[in-house]
Amino acid sequence: MSATIAAYKVPSETNPLEQLSQAMSEDMAKTNQVIIDQMQSDVPLIPQLAGYLIAAGGKRIRHLLTLACTRLFSANSTRCYGLAAAVEFVHTATLLHDDVVDESEERRGQATANDIFGNQASVLVGDFLFARSFQLMVADGSLDVLRVLSNAAAFIVEGEVLQLSIQSQMSVTMAQYSKVIEAKTASLFAAATEVGAWVSDRPDMAKAMHDYGYHLGMAFQIVDDLLDYLADAEKLGKNKGDDFREGKFTAPLILALQNANEDERAFWLRTMVERKQTDGDFEQAVEICERHNAFTQSRELAIGHAQLAAQALDACPDSELKHLLQALPAFVLSREN
Amino acid sequence: MSATIAAYKVPSETNPLEQLSQAMSEDMAKTNQVIIDQMQSDVPLIPQLAGYLIAAGGKRIRHLLTLACTRLFSANSTRCYGLAAAVEFVHTATLLHDDVVDESEERRGQATANDIFGNQASVLVGDFLFARSFQLMVADGSLDVLRVLSNAAAFIVEGEVLQLSIQSQMSVTMAQYSKVIEAKTASLFAAATEVGAWVSDRPDMAKAMHDYGYHLGMAFQIVDDLLDYLADAEKLGKNKGDDFREGKFTAPLILALQNANEDERAFWLRTMVERKQTDGDFEQAVEICERHNAFTQSRELAIGHAQLAAQALDACPDSELKHLLQALPAFVLSREN
Repeated sequence: MSATIAAYKVPSETNPLEQLSQAMSEDMAKTNQVIIDQMQSDVPLIPQLAGYLIAAGGKRIRHLLTLACTRLFSANSTRCYGLAAAVEFVHTATLLHDDVVDESEERRGQATANDIFGNQASVLVGDFLFARSFQLMVADGSLDVLRVLSNAAAFIVEGEVLQLSIQSQMSVTMAQYSKVIEAKTASLFAAATEVGAWVSDRPDMAKAMHDYGYHLGMAFQIVDDLLDYLADAEKLGKNKGDDFREGKFTAPLILALQNANEDERAFWLRTMVERKQTDGDFEQAVEICERHNAFTQSRELAIGHAQLAAQALDACPDSELKHLLQALPAFVLSREN
Repeated sequence: MSATIAAYKVPSETNPLEQLSQAMSEDMAKTNQVIIDQMQSDVPLIPQLAGYLIAAGGKRIRHLLTLACTRLFSANSTRCYGLAAAVEFVHTATLLHDDVVDESEERRGQATANDIFGNQASVLVGDFLFARSFQLMVADGSLDVLRVLSNAAAFIVEGEVLQLSIQSQMSVTMAQYSKVIEAKTASLFAAATEVGAWVSDRPDMAKAMHDYGYHLGMAFQIVDDLLDYLADAEKLGKNKGDDFREGKFTAPLILALQNANEDERAFWLRTMVERKQTDGDFEQAVEICERHNAFTQSRELAIGHAQLAAQALDACPDSELKHLLQALPAFVLSREN
């Protein structure tokens, strides 16, 4: 059956994310069932909205990682389903609250489609999913898992606040950028993978699994930020040029700023700080970054993290799953959307 | 020393909340230190905003309850400081997110003083405090406490969503109102008091302490909703008539609606559902409620809960603290702001 499907989807054969999803399809289905069950509530609005949001929820790479990293050590553990659902809920909650944070900056005064439930639903359903994720962890009963995920949750929020406080600031440094993406993305990737070690009673592997997720997450986010300038087509859930339009300094711009001449500084000041943008500005931003080799340098940063991620798994017992997980960082570098 | 202070504040002698605060002042000071320490972050915006919000944070009755209910059983426990701080953080987080939910309904299109940090800060700092509260619970290490507080957190949010979905609905029942205030208020009161039993290794007292907090919280919220119509002066943090203006059906209105004649139904439809209010409407709402004995009936509901709260403590070991806690429900009934 899966061979027949593969015959219709030839390119996915070479895509380790797809291969991983297929390898974990049974575990993914069981996790999805937990997700659906745990969204239930006597208040009908909650499963309605949460279901809509979770259904629209992208690649699900984080909870896939929790499942795969559990299976590296433990073929039969069923604890991973609830915890993978918890990881997914934390992620969805942060996405929902991100929308509120971005909306109040970007859509102020404009009528939106979700005018009735907009901010209210995003805040409350996010809170619900966050609280539910802790209920799932408590039901699992491991204080180590609770520590790892509550630390990640606090760190994510610190990253969001840091991102907010350096937005549209010309003085932003690569160190600050690193801290933001570490918090925003790498910390939950790291928690998602580390949970696999704890849930399998392999505390000796916690550090290696943490490092794998951390570097994979760093590479993932640097590439994501690169694609915001270089993607060929519209990306899933995010439009090319969003960061530029929102005045978010990411790696390419910070690197280009380090060697900017006077004209370029004036350009960045107008477009990113004063946020006065006109047609052609985005294309000019891309040109300036290319002139300073800023995209290449960003990619090199991502390559460094991808290598560290793959190396972190060296200590794991050998298996096909391990090879798929080790192939994932290189795939993250190659993705085009 | 405390006798001298009391000499300047004669009325507080008869106020069990003040007396309780004074009795617990050392524990309160230690909890405040934990609160200040735990708001720290490398991201300066967080302690700045959280500090401002916590400093402005009202009566602190919830974390006072955690401390007092611990001291009922355990004179020396220091675990209660971190957990009282966790209770305070959960409460402050829900208040912050409440503001966002209410703002987007009420202040749409209007310039506000906190135009820069308004919704963004409320969402993110709320999330931070919520995550931090779980870090505090994890550091404490009791899965029972984690279960009690994560259940309360999820229940609070369900209550908020329910409140949102029945807002401005004439069909709202007393059962729905009970569920809303149970979730919004009584559940965190109950968790705050129940934690006192768990932290003192007295699982046998968990149910009694839960019931005490639950009924105290119910009485507290019913009185709060009554005061929204009957308070003599402006209440701390909330203006008289807010619920009426926001179309929030609380006990007095729901009770008045049950026996409304045609004119009254038309009045409630216009003012609460269509939200077309003019001068004098609030006074007329008060009159209609009085005509139907709705305030008296609401107060009777509150009295019932206050009695159950005091009774729940009967099982506790006798102490001066127990008598203060038993006097609290009657005080809640008598409060005027």
